[in-house]
Amino acid sequence: MPDSLPRWGHMGGSGEPDPRTSAPSGLGLVGWQDFTSAEPFTFECGQTLTGLTLRYETYGHLNAARDNAIFIAHALSGDHHAAGIHGSGDGRPGWWDNMIGPGKAVDTRRYFVVCSNCLAGCKGSTGPSSIDPATGRPWGMRFPPTSIRDMAAADTRLLDHLGIRSLHAAIGGSMGGMRVLQMAVDHPGMVRRMIPMATTARESAQALAFNAVGRQAILRDPDWADGEYPASGGPRVGLAVARMMAHITYLSDAAMDQKFGRRRPATDDAGLGPFDMQWEVERYLRYQGNAFVDRFDARSYLYITRAIDEFDLAGEHGSLERALAPVRARSLCIGFASDWLFPPAQNREIALALLRAGKSASYAELPTDRGHDSFLLDSPQLYGFIGDFLEAPSR
Amino acid sequence: MPDSLPRWGHMGGSGEPDPRTSAPSGLGLVGWQDFTSAEPFTFECGQTLTGLTLRYETYGHLNAARDNAIFIAHALSGDHHAAGIHGSGDGRPGWWDNMIGPGKAVDTRRYFVVCSNCLAGCKGSTGPSSIDPATGRPWGMRFPPTSIRDMAAADTRLLDHLGIRSLHAAIGGSMGGMRVLQMAVDHPGMVRRMIPMATTARESAQALAFNAVGRQAILRDPDWADGEYPASGGPRVGLAVARMMAHITYLSDAAMDQKFGRRRPATDDAGLGPFDMQWEVERYLRYQGNAFVDRFDARSYLYITRAIDEFDLAGEHGSLERALAPVRARSLCIGFASDWLFPPAQNREIALALLRAGKSASYAELPTDRGHDSFLLDSPQLYGFIGDFLEAPSR
Repeated sequence: MPDSLPRWGHMGGSGEPDPRTSAPSGLGLVGWQDFTSAEPFTFECGQTLTGLTLRYETYGHLNAARDNAIFIAHALSGDHHAAGIHGSGDGRPGWWDNMIGPGKAVDTRRYFVVCSNCLAGCKGSTGPSSIDPATGRPWGMRFPPTSIRDMAAADTRLLDHLGIRSLHAAIGGSMGGMRVLQMAVDHPGMVRRMIPMATTARESAQALAFNAVGRQAILRDPDWADGEYPASGGPRVGLAVARMMAHITYLSDAAMDQKFGRRRPATDDAGLGPFDMQWEVERYLRYQGNAFVDRFDARSYLYITRAIDEFDLAGEHGSLERALAPVRARSLCIGFASDWLFPPAQNREIALALLRAGKSASYAELPTDRGHDSFLLDSPQLYGFIGDFLEAPSR
Repeated sequence: MPDSLPRWGHMGGSGEPDPRTSAPSGLGLVGWQDFTSAEPFTFECGQTLTGLTLRYETYGHLNAARDNAIFIAHALSGDHHAAGIHGSGDGRPGWWDNMIGPGKAVDTRRYFVVCSNCLAGCKGSTGPSSIDPATGRPWGMRFPPTSIRDMAAADTRLLDHLGIRSLHAAIGGSMGGMRVLQMAVDHPGMVRRMIPMATTARESAQALAFNAVGRQAILRDPDWADGEYPASGGPRVGLAVARMMAHITYLSDAAMDQKFGRRRPATDDAGLGPFDMQWEVERYLRYQGNAFVDRFDARSYLYITRAIDEFDLAGEHGSLERALAPVRARSLCIGFASDWLFPPAQNREIALALLRAGKSASYAELPTDRGHDSFLLDSPQLYGFIGDFLEAPSR
């Protein structure tokens, strides 16, 4: 389908691409909405806010039985804009547009898709850069420390608001997989199927270390100012360095060698000197780092990476098997061979623990060489696994 | 041998530990010397200095035939103090004290060991923090960009000065392996045996990326000041962040999980808050980062990481086999199974290219799970490989 013919996703309509292709922006133009709850929200840490807002998007139609909803949980740097195109934006489709749309693996002709910006995020949902009504200034570091459990509770409140009593499925990669797991544990009636992928039930020390060093880069940036910076300022260098470093962990050695190798950037690039921008991979990371700083708040980066690091299903219950005991969902866990951030074995372990706990679970491992971010990339095999699992009849 | 009985290494003497053990400080007290050459030194980049200084240490005795010398090449953050204890220092033995000493794998009763601080270093050898005689101020970024080839040329000048026409062996890990390879290629008559280990003939894009992000952290630190900072100042945050990140790449996931896991630091530690120093691994890295800043100069970090990144034996000659054609040394290449910075395959490839070039070469791979830094750690197997290779009769 040509990109020059955008349509409103909710309108459905003709011209859908062939099933399970990754043609971009099959949904055409989409928009977001805000859900504001005036009910107090108590965080896992014990602190309470008088209410909260979640920004979200939906694609497709909720059926009369209200049983065809799929919740999409984004990762660290994602947001509610999972698919389609924003009329006011840069024309780039949402972050999982290859997965979600009419005729795609998550088929918006059949399913009502909901994706929210997570609690503690910075794209419209309540978080540390939101205004504290008591002071009229951003919450900053006074915002309650937020957990994956808090995110799942807030998301469940949004789903309740939308009249969804039970999801056809919850799907997410990386931190999105943690959010899906937590929702299935804490709100078992809400999740009939789940697909956690490229994720972990708890991070290894190496993954903790990368996040911790990223936070150090932010906290020790002289412009950090304890999080009390103006919207135009903040620790730009620290956040960019954190993002550049993290970005390396999202790729594989093979993917980087293939994409960049030891190529040099064009010599007319800015900043060229014997110690700056010597390599194409450096230019790419620097671009990614700077672009991230323009679209992400350093405070949310701290809050969300902390939530990821603290996530430990097994630790809380003594074993992963016991932690997963409340789950009612059927599960498809997916690992990616070249993911060294949340390696395949950690995803396989989730499926095995579900089976040990007597649940219905399966595990698929994709032989990709693209690293952690493989779950975001075009993969007919991945689309096939997900599409088949979603369409399989209920028990 | 008790640590409380230090002796001057050059004195030899009784009480040596059993062969090939790793008893610390078998050499006892050692000291460094400076070699200053008044001959002009022309760098690979074409720039010339009127002379240079290399700081170095020696252990053991050069025999009458002057054919029992072993050159030890240090890695990025190492220096000339490879073994023994400095009387004026903190009492910690040199960085490869487990390898070098009387009765150890590199046996100072038989061999005369030389280790220099590399050109462009900051521990006494000429580098960007040395005084430019023309200005009376540190060279800073006016110091000539330095290559591994330049380091090998400077080291060879030192060996000439010491009356060494031909080394029994040159040994080094990581960047030390690059220095050894370059010396064997550029000064083939000097190197009769070489042991490059945990190294590569050229870095992958991922390794380039980690170094590049580290340099970005330094170059974008507001205290960088284009390298014109006072001795007490400089980009402390940027250098610490670069070091913390790099340190992760020197370890393995398994080693970090075993050493730190998800343990928390003791709560009386400074800096504890919900976003700072939450994990033992973070405390360790932060300590390492801060300690590094106290002992290393950011300018040297830029110069040396750039030399590592630019090192590309194959690129220069079209193939590694052709690059290695001048080598006369017998080679033992060693890779470490869990090294993901310079993986085993990259070390194996050096041995294979040497064989294709008609040289005498062998490859050993150690099944350690300790990551890149394995070459520095206690390993009777590694000591055995090195000791046997050094003692094997010449062709």
